[in-house]
Amino acid sequence: MYRAPVDDIAFALNEVAGLRAAIDDGLFPELGTDLVDAILNEAGRFAGEEVAPLARIGDEKGAVLKDAAVTMPDGWKELYRRWVEGGWNGLSLPVDHGGQGLPGMLGVAALEMWNSASMAFGIGPILTMGAVDAIEKHASEELKALYLPKLVSGEWMGTMNLTEPQAGSDLNALRARAERAGDGTYRIFGQKIFITYGEHDFTDNIVHLVLARLPDAPPGTRGISLFLVPKFLPGENGAPGARNDVFCSSIEEKLGIHASPTCTMIYGDGFAKDREPGAVGWLIGEENRGLACMFTMMNNARLAVGMQGVAVAEAACQKATAYAQERRQGKAPGHDGEGMAPIILHPDVQRNLLTMKTLTATARLISYSCAHATDMARAKGGDDARHWQERANLLTPVAKAWSTDVGVDVASIGVQVHGGMGYVEETGAAALYRDARIAPIYEGTNGIQAIDLVTRKLPQSGGEHVLGYIAELRADAEAVRASNLPEFGRSGEKIAAALDELEAATRHMQGLLADGRMSDALAGATPYLRLFAIAAGAAYLGRGAVAAKAPDRIALCRFFCENFAGEAAALRERACEGAESLAQAAAALN
Amino acid sequence: MYRAPVDDIAFALNEVAGLRAAIDDGLFPELGTDLVDAILNEAGRFAGEEVAPLARIGDEKGAVLKDAAVTMPDGWKELYRRWVEGGWNGLSLPVDHGGQGLPGMLGVAALEMWNSASMAFGIGPILTMGAVDAIEKHASEELKALYLPKLVSGEWMGTMNLTEPQAGSDLNALRARAERAGDGTYRIFGQKIFITYGEHDFTDNIVHLVLARLPDAPPGTRGISLFLVPKFLPGENGAPGARNDVFCSSIEEKLGIHASPTCTMIYGDGFAKDREPGAVGWLIGEENRGLACMFTMMNNARLAVGMQGVAVAEAACQKATAYAQERRQGKAPGHDGEGMAPIILHPDVQRNLLTMKTLTATARLISYSCAHATDMARAKGGDDARHWQERANLLTPVAKAWSTDVGVDVASIGVQVHGGMGYVEETGAAALYRDARIAPIYEGTNGIQAIDLVTRKLPQSGGEHVLGYIAELRADAEAVRASNLPEFGRSGEKIAAALDELEAATRHMQGLLADGRMSDALAGATPYLRLFAIAAGAAYLGRGAVAAKAPDRIALCRFFCENFAGEAAALRERACEGAESLAQAAAALN
Repeated sequence: MYRAPVDDIAFALNEVAGLRAAIDDGLFPELGTDLVDAILNEAGRFAGEEVAPLARIGDEKGAVLKDAAVTMPDGWKELYRRWVEGGWNGLSLPVDHGGQGLPGMLGVAALEMWNSASMAFGIGPILTMGAVDAIEKHASEELKALYLPKLVSGEWMGTMNLTEPQAGSDLNALRARAERAGDGTYRIFGQKIFITYGEHDFTDNIVHLVLARLPDAPPGTRGISLFLVPKFLPGENGAPGARNDVFCSSIEEKLGIHASPTCTMIYGDGFAKDREPGAVGWLIGEENRGLACMFTMMNNARLAVGMQGVAVAEAACQKATAYAQERRQGKAPGHDGEGMAPIILHPDVQRNLLTMKTLTATARLISYSCAHATDMARAKGGDDARHWQERANLLTPVAKAWSTDVGVDVASIGVQVHGGMGYVEETGAAALYRDARIAPIYEGTNGIQAIDLVTRKLPQSGGEHVLGYIAELRADAEAVRASNLPEFGRSGEKIAAALDELEAATRHMQGLLADGRMSDALAGATPYLRLFAIAAGAAYLGRGAVAAKAPDRIALCRFFCENFAGEAAALRERACEGAESLAQAAAALN
Repeated sequence: MYRAPVDDIAFALNEVAGLRAAIDDGLFPELGTDLVDAILNEAGRFAGEEVAPLARIGDEKGAVLKDAAVTMPDGWKELYRRWVEGGWNGLSLPVDHGGQGLPGMLGVAALEMWNSASMAFGIGPILTMGAVDAIEKHASEELKALYLPKLVSGEWMGTMNLTEPQAGSDLNALRARAERAGDGTYRIFGQKIFITYGEHDFTDNIVHLVLARLPDAPPGTRGISLFLVPKFLPGENGAPGARNDVFCSSIEEKLGIHASPTCTMIYGDGFAKDREPGAVGWLIGEENRGLACMFTMMNNARLAVGMQGVAVAEAACQKATAYAQERRQGKAPGHDGEGMAPIILHPDVQRNLLTMKTLTATARLISYSCAHATDMARAKGGDDARHWQERANLLTPVAKAWSTDVGVDVASIGVQVHGGMGYVEETGAAALYRDARIAPIYEGTNGIQAIDLVTRKLPQSGGEHVLGYIAELRADAEAVRASNLPEFGRSGEKIAAALDELEAATRHMQGLLADGRMSDALAGATPYLRLFAIAAGAAYLGRGAVAAKAPDRIALCRFFCENFAGEAAALRERACEGAESLAQAAAALN
């Protein structure tokens, strides 16, 4: 059963990602490290004691659709109620609307815990937070007053309605349509698919944010508008009133996260019999400017999905380690006791567990650093804010893609450590392997993340931002080297060498973009992102090990450097020199 | 839907793995390449038209246990019947007992096809073949006469009963016991778990091969004997007679291969009410020498499981490629048509598909080469036979571990190529991801394979066999270089460099073993195996490309060299220099 690694999380937040320094600088005046610890401990308790015990029934029973209503698995509604009562939904949401206004880093750390306990549970609030962001930044005061208090508390949940059958990664192809009703409201028509928590029995109302086109909208993404479409229209005092013309027509049978209802939503098909067809919606932001609003939702959601990767990896580590301590087979070096050795003493099993543990750690450190950047962008002003916003922009695709790839790989190794028992559903290792697989896909596939990183983030500030970031990481490599601790082995040199490769690849990519060689840049985007993550992850592990000077942290840093940092040269080659052979071989794909 | 890649398979068999040369040398006098093609075509037809359409129902309904009897999914019993009638079970089994006696390579190629169509179907006959091997090599003439004709034809199926709850990878811990009955037979008692096709309704009888201990047996693996325990005792003319005291008490709820019944088998618990408790068994081989018999079964089974890896990877490639040709999103370089581009034109999608395709190809080439070595060992005599047996021994763990790791990775990328549709069970991509995950675990985990490779196979012939193998592969690298085809890019150099790393790592590992530094060798075994597979796979791709001089094969070889061969240096480092940091970091695992 999952136990939140509260000390590890606190260490990562404070000593690597920058929370302690920000607190010391007075950026979060109401926050001390004591309060941080208290929050993390309580979140950890709730995740381990309340959420985790319901993960199994969630996987086995799943969400069930009947007559357009989704019933959640036994105990889940009450679980959500208790979670809301604990104030967790509003942890890092704005104080103005009833939130606690704590730094996003804390929200992200707590999110990791909910998702380690159950990804199917943890994904729901991510959508609500996205809706809060979009409404807060772009909606009218009236809409804010009506919806934000309930969404911030968690009394209602939100959804994001982007995807249509023909429009997944490519939003140009959206067809859902909106008509002006003449009274300032709109009527929405169309079908949306893959809508996470599109329908459920957790809350009395569900607030759908829906992308659609007005009749006179220009084609492509410049003709998309964002609408707020509640399941129940606001009645007296804003309480849920008449049923809106939107309903869930089916839910997907998925590989994992069975308790998360993935809905096909039908807008404007006459579901509400007592009125003209057309789901009543309110515009968020300006007409035809919905894409910008949507990016507000998506950016934070991308980091949040990255946290799901960290979370499932952490859960898999814990489960595999516990099993390896328990299970005995064969003789192993260093086992002097009677009978068979715990398999955790076999070097090959240790390699698996250490691979899991260090990959998980790098994903966590990169993701928390990304959250920190967002917090700093909010807390600072002027040029500083711009700097930190660029940092958040830079790290978001890396946090999303690397963490979710790590989630899949670590969950897979976790099954392997369990041997035959891993393939049997009873142990839960297989469920993590099933759950993990969605995270590299949703909120923008990892291929899209890599393309975003290379084509939109490397050019920030004329290319200087990313180079400045790499320079900062070099200080970590140097600190490792300068520590003169023999336990590091050659970690400092290896981190520095990986950063050399990253810088070379970065300049190469920037050159391709400058030369308009877009296709070559796209061809190398995925290996470039992996190189970025390995180099940054190694540097962050070094930063933590230098700060802690603890043998365990030093050893984990060294293990990662010796087993992953060495890939950097090959990755640079793949990223920078592979376009020609890729194009050549692509002809063989028929 | 799966279509057997008959041309690719024939090419791999003939031009890379050595079948054509062996035929030309007159080693298989009754076999011409025409017959090879005819067999492959017919196997491909059966796999695609008969097996594949039943895969889905197999996954959805699975095998069902009721009152100790397992019912297979609708249509599966008839499918198995047709498959047996086609003569497929005995394809490469001995002529003396009714088989067709064709080279094992053909059997392995056909096995790939059954397993691409349905891993849950394809695994059953693998166990029967293992039983045939063990009985043929080690059992009395009487047992052979009674059981081999039915097992070779497939009228009955066989099983392998090794694992017990406390004894998985470590057979020292076996507890199942056997007692001498005084009439030459034995009585078997105990519980076996994870018994594939331990019970089903395909055949009128099931022949269990069971490892157990005699009362006076020495401890450990030197006290294990192998017994033949039929579900029904031989009656008149060998027809199934009285029910034996063995039954299936439960079947596992597994991540995948749902139609393959994974049984807990109970021996000697009084299931047959009309007799004294104790399952009636017959000794195979000598008392206390069961381990050798078991290895006979396992060696071929390991290659066969490797073929499952190839098979599931091939199926995933086909599914993802078809989807990428169909699905349209966004703009892509080279798409001049109307509307959105098929996603197969996006470089990042191409990278995914080419990664899938080349990994699959290397796994196939290594596995077929392993099968070829076994054929040659049988066809040749004297020193040649020993040479080829060592080759088969060397390649078996690589074929098993690399191919099954590839199966998991490729199936995972296959889900990714499908985007959101990959996570929905309807497309079948997720089912491949679930099915694939068992293969790195059963028949010896991939960690065990790596240890076997390093500790038992590298020392063959005083260490010379593996070095001779590497030297042979150097000729392939040289042939690529000497071809002077610019389309190869620097493939020849890259293959040669990977082989340099492999040779250095091999000598290093041999040195560790010679120095008794077993723990260091174990620590590096897994990265060593990966290095071996990448270097060998690259060389085989080069061999095929030089033979064919076809642009597609050259391009695929180059893609693999540029994207995987570059890992070799880092892998050698991991394999040879990682033991210290592994041991150091292992202390952090608590």
